[in-house]
Amino acid sequence: MSQETQTAKQRIILTGDRTTGPLHLGHYIGSLRARVQLQHEAQQFLLLADTQAMTDNVGRHQKVTENVIEVALDYLAVGIDPAKSTIFIQSQVPELAELTQYLLNLVTVARLERNPTIKQEIVLRGFERDIPAGFLTYPVSQAADITAFKATQVPVGDDQLPMIEQTNELVRRFNNTVERQVLVECEAVLSNVTRLPGIDGKAKMSKSLGNSIPLGATPDEITKAVNNMYTDPNHLRVSDPGQVEGNVVFSFLDAFEPDVAKVDELKAHYRRGGLGDSVVKRALNERLQAMLAPIAARRREMEADRGEVMAMLRSGTMRAREVAGATLSEVKSALGLDYFAD
Amino acid sequence: MSQETQTAKQRIILTGDRTTGPLHLGHYIGSLRARVQLQHEAQQFLLLADTQAMTDNVGRHQKVTENVIEVALDYLAVGIDPAKSTIFIQSQVPELAELTQYLLNLVTVARLERNPTIKQEIVLRGFERDIPAGFLTYPVSQAADITAFKATQVPVGDDQLPMIEQTNELVRRFNNTVERQVLVECEAVLSNVTRLPGIDGKAKMSKSLGNSIPLGATPDEITKAVNNMYTDPNHLRVSDPGQVEGNVVFSFLDAFEPDVAKVDELKAHYRRGGLGDSVVKRALNERLQAMLAPIAARRREMEADRGEVMAMLRSGTMRAREVAGATLSEVKSALGLDYFAD
Repeated sequence: MSQETQTAKQRIILTGDRTTGPLHLGHYIGSLRARVQLQHEAQQFLLLADTQAMTDNVGRHQKVTENVIEVALDYLAVGIDPAKSTIFIQSQVPELAELTQYLLNLVTVARLERNPTIKQEIVLRGFERDIPAGFLTYPVSQAADITAFKATQVPVGDDQLPMIEQTNELVRRFNNTVERQVLVECEAVLSNVTRLPGIDGKAKMSKSLGNSIPLGATPDEITKAVNNMYTDPNHLRVSDPGQVEGNVVFSFLDAFEPDVAKVDELKAHYRRGGLGDSVVKRALNERLQAMLAPIAARRREMEADRGEVMAMLRSGTMRAREVAGATLSEVKSALGLDYFAD
Repeated sequence: MSQETQTAKQRIILTGDRTTGPLHLGHYIGSLRARVQLQHEAQQFLLLADTQAMTDNVGRHQKVTENVIEVALDYLAVGIDPAKSTIFIQSQVPELAELTQYLLNLVTVARLERNPTIKQEIVLRGFERDIPAGFLTYPVSQAADITAFKATQVPVGDDQLPMIEQTNELVRRFNNTVERQVLVECEAVLSNVTRLPGIDGKAKMSKSLGNSIPLGATPDEITKAVNNMYTDPNHLRVSDPGQVEGNVVFSFLDAFEPDVAKVDELKAHYRRGGLGDSVVKRALNERLQAMLAPIAARRREMEADRGEVMAMLRSGTMRAREVAGATLSEVKSALGLDYFAD
């Protein structure tokens, strides 16, 4: 085995999605596309984070659980291969709850409250003083997810860096406490993709903002979304010079059109005037239709046999339990909690 | 089956001890003696709370785990019958960690911080702002312990009443959220026994204060402890009138000498003068020796076969997992987290 292959094999990636809705083009460009690639290069664990989604969806648990299979279908549709990536459901790996419990003793409430990501999200969700305890502590649960699989790399947005920092603090604290190297520190892998805007031009594509194009969109839905895209509001006549910056159609072309020369040409023409929005939109529409058609087809195919998808999830979850269970055994043994070990 | 018998069978008691040291006479009078009785009248689950003890014993995990078998030996020695009571180890019932995780979403951080018991203990332990998250949230873990067994009664000291209140809040909140009666509210059963003072006259007998008489004390240790007991510091000569109130020897006689008339006579004599401390101490010493000798003998006997004790704990823990697992299944099913259910 060459050294490079060895290194590749030793890379363990943990990533996943909260199961609050089907995935959209923002997820595709931001993470899914990379995962399809990474599954050939590393051990990849993909977490369907239903338990985490529950922390701020009390009373909306049905939404969370119903979307588990939707997200799984999206994974399969974009080409994530369950034979290469381990796809599993968080709530069905009780080892993660157990590990969380032990890590919770190693972090103070004050430290959790200082986490900038949590601070932001508390404001975003309007929790103020009424923060559910499960929400304040979810970074610890995230640390358990990462460390249970001894992940070495975690793909994150830059807003998630404090989570990785906190995870590594917990790893060091745990290993120091038991005086053994049990848990493994991880490295944040920042995506170099700029964030895809919503079709309304808002900073972020998001299902809840109603500005997204889901991966399972029909051809009509795609066309409609493209036609509704925010362009340059001052580009009133075709002959007017138009602005490319902040123009969602061009942001999408940058993200999804591999023919860079063609995009550059369209941009130049648009800037100097004489190119109508409808022409640019048609180019994008064609591109998205071509890209999404096979994904949608695969999704429909898989959707027809949900039993098969559940069987795949069951087998991925069993595999995840094996790995997480082995780590938990080490953790419990290091703490002396292996009373019944043979 | 008579109605009374049915009612008795439906009573489910959950109680237990943190495993931070062997138990002492304070535990015996405060809880153990009642448990020996209660095991004939109700279903009794006895929790060896190692996980809970970990929340404020980071770095002292060995102390916590080593004392699991010590506390179990104390249980067996006083007459708790594993065929009647289910004795189990908290850390070995992962269902409790899982249930805790779901309950954590139903309580706010502010509510946890308002818990008077936690407030007191934070001061007691000198945590101030550095409260481990696991410590702040341990009332939720306690609620999971209670509700996992659908306990109807929980014996507590009055300082623990806020814990029961919080547990019942969580029960109502959970049942409301899932619109089903899954979890069961419990009732606090206040002990009517006054708290046994330490041999130094301090308010509370406690191993960490070094003022306790352990259940496994040798005859010499008992004699020495009785001789060291705090009496009336103004009772200098035998002929002096002595004070009974706050006199530890009399507190112990009240607690352990069933011959009330004899105790009353000693008190009267002591009050009017002419009764030396050594005479009263001898009476108490005889009583404690007689009471503790069979307990110590049984403890030594059990101690000789630790494998047997561990087998008993393993079987109690398996039984506890069955019951807690059934509740957790209901909880997860109510939340829609039963993806793989047949």
